[in-house]
Amino acid sequence: MDMRFMLNLIANGSVNVPSLLLEHYPEIGLNEQECMMLIQVHSFLSKGDDFPTFDNLADRMTLDETACADLLRRLIQRGYLSIVQKSDNDFYSESYSLQPLWEKLLRTSYGKTVETTSKNNEN
Amino acid sequence: MDMRFMLNLIANGSVNVPSLLLEHYPEIGLNEQECMMLIQVHSFLSKGDDFPTFDNLADRMTLDETACADLLRRLIQRGYLSIVQKSDNDFYSESYSLQPLWEKLLRTSYGKTVETTSKNNEN
Amino acid sequence: MDMRFMLNLIANGSVNVPSLLLEHYPEIGLNEQECMMLIQVHSFLSKGDDFPTFDNLADRMTLDETACADLLRRLIQRGYLSIVQKSDNDFYSESYSLQPLWEKLLRTSYGKTVETTSKNNEN
Amino acid sequence: MDMRFMLNLIANGSVNVPSLLLEHYPEIGLNEQECMMLIQVHSFLSKGDDFPTFDNLADRMTLDETACADLLRRLIQRGYLSIVQKSDNDFYSESYSLQPLWEKLLRTSYGKTVETTSKNNEN
Repeated sequence: MDMRFMLNLIANGSVNVPSLLLEHYPEIGLNEQECMMLIQVHSFLSKGDDFPTFDNLADRMTLDETACADLLRRLIQRGYLSIVQKSDNDFYSESYSLQPLWEKLLRTSYGKTVETTSKNNEN
Repeated sequence: MDMRFMLNLIANGSVNVPSLLLEHYPEIGLNEQECMMLIQVHSFLSKGDDFPTFDNLADRMTLDETACADLLRRLIQRGYLSIVQKSDNDFYSESYSLQPLWEKLLRTSYGKTVETTSKNNEN
Repeated sequence: MDMRFMLNLIANGSVNVPSLLLEHYPEIGLNEQECMMLIQVHSFLSKGDDFPTFDNLADRMTLDETACADLLRRLIQRGYLSIVQKSDNDFYSESYSLQPLWEKLLRTSYGKTVETTSKNNEN
Repeated sequence: MDMRFMLNLIANGSVNVPSLLLEHYPEIGLNEQECMMLIQVHSFLSKGDDFPTFDNLADRMTLDETACADLLRRLIQRGYLSIVQKSDNDFYSESYSLQPLWEKLLRTSYGKTVETTSKNNEN
């Protein structure tokens, strides 16, 4: 038994991806490659790394750094991702925020729920 | 507060995607679309649905049913996915298994660990 | 490398426990033992086993079967857990539901959010 | 729909608790209260907070700060938890590590797997 490898399997374990994203990304206008990029950003954020580099992202995708930068820029322009600027005691930093993505998903899936409820009530 | 919608957010919550997959899928020869398909299959399996239909999968992807069927067939042929047949008291059923995928990922990432360890020992 | 053991580590992996529960269980009147019992029930439900036996639960706790049955009964009486009866084509079954727990947690934490917001607005 | 509350539900979501812990804590000598304390520490660690205060922990448990400090000390003495000291460019910090816990769990559950395999081979 390779203890070090298995400790890493447990500690590094898995990433919680919201079901809303997996179930509704095409409805909010994303394709698989765009969705994977957002999952990668989410994965860094959820482990406490707020601003992965293009290089960090390219390492885990089939895209090179330039293509990663382009894709991120387009996702920001189309309103799925934002960059938040924080300043904390003269220490200035930037971080990605997926709040725009979660808002889109909530609006879409909430709309659906309300619709379904109304239809059920009609019967 | 819409209780029903929020209960669903909690109960349906999120899917655990193994970090090994997010970090190493390009190394084992997958692109983003193929990886998303395997994540979708994993998401059904982890909620107890062992054999989602092409239609179930197409509903959550940018691919139609035929394209889903094609992609699944290619993933099986290339050894990332298998179909397991069970018979239980005259009741015969099929289910997808991602064991081939996890094996590939373990071999790849374990190989890397061993290599890194040896290199460290040399110094 | 013991492949079978590690495949199980990945496949059996981890259980998503809602942060609401970990952060607010004392406020809704639960102690650690009661909270662990509800986490165990949640863990069975989330893997598709809707009605674990007292024996299944006792196997994973410091309580014996009788103590598990008593604790579950008290949790039902106090409104944290319910038993739902389904009948599906002459096939009758029971399952545990944690909906009462999630509702309590949502009401408690939502109340807090609203309060905080009002306080902030006052300033 | 209260967008802010629901964004928090998604972003703050859930904590991945390793199944090994939920299934085997009594075997490695923990009771429910001790296990909950370790889950709380794990929950802080997994969100990037390496060294929660006694106060942070007491806020989420039925124990007060003194009782939390006592319980943590006993868990360290009994080898379930450790404190790791890091120094990074004159910046010195401490963090909790659950590596001792995961090692105990791996040894216990691995032992069981090997035993089961041997028994199966005998038949």
